[in-house]
Order: sequence, then structure tokens, then C-alpha cells
Amino acid sequence: MLATLRLKKNEDRRIKQGHLWVFSNEVDINATPLKDFQPGQQVIIEADNGKPLGMGYVNPNTLICARLLSRSAKLELNLKFLKKRIQEAQALRELSFDKPYYRLLFAEADGLPGLVIDRFGDVFSVQISTAGMEVIKADILQVLENLYHPQAIVLKNNLAARELEGLPLYEEVLGELPEELIIEENATQFAIPVEAGQKTGWFYDHRQSRARLQSLSKGKRVLDVFSYLGGWGLACATAGAAEVTCVDASELALDGVDKNAQLNGVQDKVVTIQGNAFDVLNALKTEEQKFDVVIVDPPAFIKRKKDFKQGFEAYKRINQLAMRVLAKDGVLVSASCSHHLTRDQLLQAVQSAGRHIDRQVQLFDQGHQAPDHPVHPAIPESEYIKTLFFKVGPSW
Amino acid sequence: MLATLRLKKNEDRRIKQGHLWVFSNEVDINATPLKDFQPGQQVIIEADNGKPLGMGYVNPNTLICARLLSRSAKLELNLKFLKKRIQEAQALRELSFDKPYYRLLFAEADGLPGLVIDRFGDVFSVQISTAGMEVIKADILQVLENLYHPQAIVLKNNLAARELEGLPLYEEVLGELPEELIIEENATQFAIPVEAGQKTGWFYDHRQSRARLQSLSKGKRVLDVFSYLGGWGLACATAGAAEVTCVDASELALDGVDKNAQLNGVQDKVVTIQGNAFDVLNALKTEEQKFDVVIVDPPAFIKRKKDFKQGFEAYKRINQLAMRVLAKDGVLVSASCSHHLTRDQLLQAVQSAGRHIDRQVQLFDQGHQAPDHPVHPAIPESEYIKTLFFKVGPSW
Repeated sequence: MLATLRLKKNEDRRIKQGHLWVFSNEVDINATPLKDFQPGQQVIIEADNGKPLGMGYVNPNTLICARLLSRSAKLELNLKFLKKRIQEAQALRELSFDKPYYRLLFAEADGLPGLVIDRFGDVFSVQISTAGMEVIKADILQVLENLYHPQAIVLKNNLAARELEGLPLYEEVLGELPEELIIEENATQFAIPVEAGQKTGWFYDHRQSRARLQSLSKGKRVLDVFSYLGGWGLACATAGAAEVTCVDASELALDGVDKNAQLNGVQDKVVTIQGNAFDVLNALKTEEQKFDVVIVDPPAFIKRKKDFKQGFEAYKRINQLAMRVLAKDGVLVSASCSHHLTRDQLLQAVQSAGRHIDRQVQLFDQGHQAPDHPVHPAIPESEYIKTLFFKVGPSW
Repeated sequence: MLATLRLKKNEDRRIKQGHLWVFSNEVDINATPLKDFQPGQQVIIEADNGKPLGMGYVNPNTLICARLLSRSAKLELNLKFLKKRIQEAQALRELSFDKPYYRLLFAEADGLPGLVIDRFGDVFSVQISTAGMEVIKADILQVLENLYHPQAIVLKNNLAARELEGLPLYEEVLGELPEELIIEENATQFAIPVEAGQKTGWFYDHRQSRARLQSLSKGKRVLDVFSYLGGWGLACATAGAAEVTCVDASELALDGVDKNAQLNGVQDKVVTIQGNAFDVLNALKTEEQKFDVVIVDPPAFIKRKKDFKQGFEAYKRINQLAMRVLAKDGVLVSASCSHHLTRDQLLQAVQSAGRHIDRQVQLFDQGHQAPDHPVHPAIPESEYIKTLFFKVGPSW
């Protein structure tokens, strides 16, 4: 029998509308003191009138002190529960993808708050970000074992968010990680460094937008700024781009670009430039280099709300620099993964940059995070990617 | 030498940011009385300090009393100007489409406010909505003749907006309209009634989203609500759907569906139901019919801002009805063309409908208006289409 966490009057509203989070100030701590709960403990969450809202888990030490797992108060978070949710998540991916390369599970948006699983064929990258998921880590691993018999599971439990939950930061490899791990995206092969790489090792979230760009790349001279392993640039190369230049500050990333170019047999048309993106764009401008397609997909310039103003200016600046190396009537692909920058604001940043240097921009297509990163409609935080496709010409 | 229209102090701001409209209260009517201008007259628009902002046309009788055509005050709206803009617009379409079936020109978003041109192969459908374009109608027709030698041009000058501009409503066919006009979209043929049909005769604006749906349709039982000529449903049928039901209130539309089903050789799996969409969905529910995919693409339920509340409820109701005839883990495609309903609000309508009948919806993809309906980044009014792809399952 699970313990009960009682909410204050009217504090059940957000949950009833579909959200999964309970904030600590919403709990009736006279009836159910938070200090009585263990981090990660499973509970029945109930309204102030005693009516159960569902089952979830608690962390008494965090601002989000509980997350709902099910609207049935009769279920428990166990092997069976995990298996069902993961299988449902897999079914959603299989609507769109016919090969086992995708984000298998995306936390709240797939009904398992605190858990992210990327699938790289037989290798799985797992990120646990809450105490509630940490306490059932053995079950999570067991379900993956039962469903997929993985060759290896990499626990990428090194996100800063874990510290807020009172969890240690660590990485761990279970099983045998192959010497070279190769995934496929948009008919392009990528060797990815699961251990040394950023986040879970690969960013599947731009897949549809990259496919869209492939359809625009034939015969073009392409510049991929903030390329990481070449997700955009190499997709263009395999789709027939004439020449691709990848820019990144990281040597590891650019070594990856070179390796991946070879893997796809496009090494003759792919070059890399290591350096700060702003500096490299300035240098290319000075050299009067022109590209038909420029992709600007930076890391989040706005990580926290208070960084907005500075970050917004950075988006403007980088897009303006990109336009300066764009050939007449070229295509600018401008992406942002900052949750705090809305789609309209990114559009405004590019428009404003264009006006500033007397360019007319036309927005002709838009991309979103890929289908393996679903959005929970009641949780705006689950949406973060925006991609805008512009034709850029002289001012009208 | 063009006459001058002078703005009041600080009223040049919107134009400088990239917008193309001047509202009548922004004009310095002491310096340049609006009544001195003819409807459609070309002018230099200047700031209060006499600095030219560019060239545009005026209608002294409308709220939007001038629209900017160029930031150069040296150009005139003439054959040469029109030709250049139309060719630029064509180049933008040719980035994405290799056959001559698209919206060739989308008004403000292509730098020619007041003019929309749809291209159906050798037939062109033209809508002129402002006095400024009406006065150069002969030039517009001449440019189309010079560039494309059309078989026919249909002037669909019957929009209500023309009345505000003091223009007569009429339709006119120039040249020989073929007995059957066939266009192609997503490898599907459609015979379209340019004269008798809605708007310009065909809605190209959902093309990319329909292509996306094709990839989800194989073997599925599909319901296309508000089908018009079957743009969604028949795209599914040609992409391998097992069965397609098209619902529309218009007999003309459903005759079109039947004809188009035959044209594509899919008549054996396409059926139509004539009736009010709400009633038909209720009846299908009563019959316990279930579909794997339901498309809800209604006409704008919110035509004016003041219709918002009622319209929002209508979006909720129609999507809720759609979910009720959806098989477990089915796909709901929910679209809106109401400019006054934001993407977030449509999402909220569907989420709320789902909660109301205890369904969990996951947003796994999103569509926008097709690349032949570009968005002018400074003119939010130029964006209107949103399409959301949901997986709908039992409540978590």
C-alpha cells in the first residue's frame, strides 16, 4: 500500500489539465509533511478532498517535489509498468522510423518523467535525472535487457540536474561497447562517441529538418556552423552537395566529421575548420567566401531565463554573420534549442539581422523536434527545438 | 515623378523593421492629405524628416492606406518590376517543387502586396485584392503572358476584401480553360474546378503535411473530415491506405473526390459521406466505426478576433469527436487555418479535448504552410496554417 501525498485546495488543477508535476508549495504539508517521504518514494497523489489523482513519485528536496506517472492510483512503477511505457514509446517511433536508431524514450513526453533512453542499434544510452527513476534503476536495466538484449548500455548519469535531486554524477558502461558505434540517419552513416561525446552522444532531434535540407542541397556549396559530428553537413554531402565546410570549436567533433565523411565516401568534398563560430564566420567574410546554404545550429545561447537579452543578441549576431557569407538568394537554416527562445523570437532575431544589413528574408519552411522527441501537450517545457528555413536576398 | 506620402514622427518604425503596411492614422495629413490621392496611386513614402522610406501604393479609403513595394524610391511598379518579383517567387518555388503546380506568388510575402497567383500547369488563377494592384491589372496579365504563355488565366476577383478597397467583385476567364484541369500534388492527381471551386480552386498550402501523412498511411483505415476534393484522403489512398472515407458538406466537393479517386485508380477503397462534419462524426461514433488515422482540417472557425471563444470551443468539439472514432493508438491530424488561433492554442484545444474524454495525446510532428506560401517575417498575418500530428491513446 503506497503512502499518500495530499495537495492543497485547488492545487490539483494543473494535474487535472494534464500536467505531471507537483511543486512543493502545492502540497498540504500539515496533512502529509514532505519530510516524511524518502527521495524517490512512490505515492498516491490526492486532491484536498481525498480523491486520488493518480500515482507518482516524490522527492522532498526538490522544487518539483512529485511527478505523476499514472492517473490510476492502482498501478505501481515496476517492471511491468516500465515495459508497457517503453513498448508504447517504441510503437510511436516505429510509425516514423524503420531502423533502430532513435530516441526510444523522452521522459515526461512518453510518460516516464526523469528517464531518457537513446537507441543506437544494440547499444542504449540511458540518462536518469530524478531520484524516482534512480531507485528503480535495476528495473530499467532489466526491462531493456528483456526487450532488446543490448550489446551495451551506457549510463550517462552526469547531468547537472541530478545534483538538485541529490544524486551522484557518474558514467558507467554495462556490457561491451563496440570499438566503433555506427548509427544511420537520413541514409547517412555516423560513427558516434557515446562515451566522450556531448549529451547522450548524438542529437537525433533534428532528423526531419536535416532530411528537408537534403532535398535542397544538390550541387550546393554548404557551410555547417556548430557542426558537432556533421549531422547537417554530411547529410547534405550524401544528398549531393558539391562542397561542405563544417565549423566547430571541438577537435573531437571535427575528427568525427572527418571519420564520418570517409565512412560515407564523401571525404573529397568535406572540409573542416576548427574555431569559434563567430571568428570563423568573420574570417570567411573577409576572404569573401560565399555559400549557397548556411546552417546555424548553435548550442543553447539562452540556458536560463535571465540570459535572454544577451542570448537573443547572440542569435541575431550569429545569423547576421551567416547572411554575410551567403550567396545571393541562398538558403539560411537557423535553429535554436533554447527552450526560453520562442519560435517567434528566433524569427524576429533573423528578421532583425536581415534588416540591419539590408537583406530581405523569406521564411519558406519550418522544422520541429523529430517524432522521437514528442511534445507533451500540457508541458510546454517538453518542446525546445525550432528550425527555420529562409531564402535570403537583397532588400526589396 | 511620383507624389509623396509623408508619415508622422516615429510612424516609420514598423516600416523600418521590415513591415510593408502604413495605417491611415500614421500619415501626416497636414503635409500630405490622403484625399489628394487616387485609389491605387503610386507614391514615395517618406518619414517625417523627408527621408524616403521607399515606393508603394495608396488607397485613401482603407485602414491600410499604403503598402510598401520597394525600399528604393527610384523604382516604379511596372512591367519590369512585376516580372522581377514573379521570377524571384518562381525561383523560391523551384527550390522545393519540380512540377509547375504551386502558388506562384503570395502577396506581401513575395513582395507584391494585394496579388496572389496560383499556378496549375498552363492555367493561372489570379486574385487581386487591392486598388494598387487593380490599376496595373493589364501589366500583371502581360507579364504572365510574356513569362508563361498561359492557356488560360482565371481572374478570381470575388473576395470580400475587394469591397473595402472599392473594387467590384467578379470572375473572368481569359483564354481557353480546359474542360478538365488536372494538377499533381504528392504524386497524386487532382481534377480541380477552378471556376466553381473554393478560393482559387485548390489549396496547395498543406502539401508538405499531406506528404508527411502519406508516410504514415500504409495499410491504414483513414477518415478525412472536411475533405473538399480529397487533398488529404486521396494522398493517403495513393500512398497505400487500406480504406479512405471522405466527409464534406458539399456535393460538388464529393463529386470531385469520386472523380479524383478514379483518376488515381483508387476508387475501390474510397467512399464519401455528405453531411455536416459534427453530425457525421456523431453518427460514425454511434455505429462504433474506428479509424487508424483521422484528419480534421476545417474551414476557419475563427474568422474575426471576436469569434475566438466560440471558435475555440468548436475546435475542441470537432477534435474530441474525431478522437472518439479513432482506434487505439491511432493518429489524429489536426489542422487550423485561422490566423487568430495560434499553434499553442490549437494544441491546447486538442489537449483539453483529450483530457475531457480521458485520452493521452502525444504531439509527434508538426506542419506549416507549404514553401509556396512563404511567411514574411515582419508580417505575422502572412502565417496562418498549423498542422499537428498526434498519437492518441488511453490516459496514462
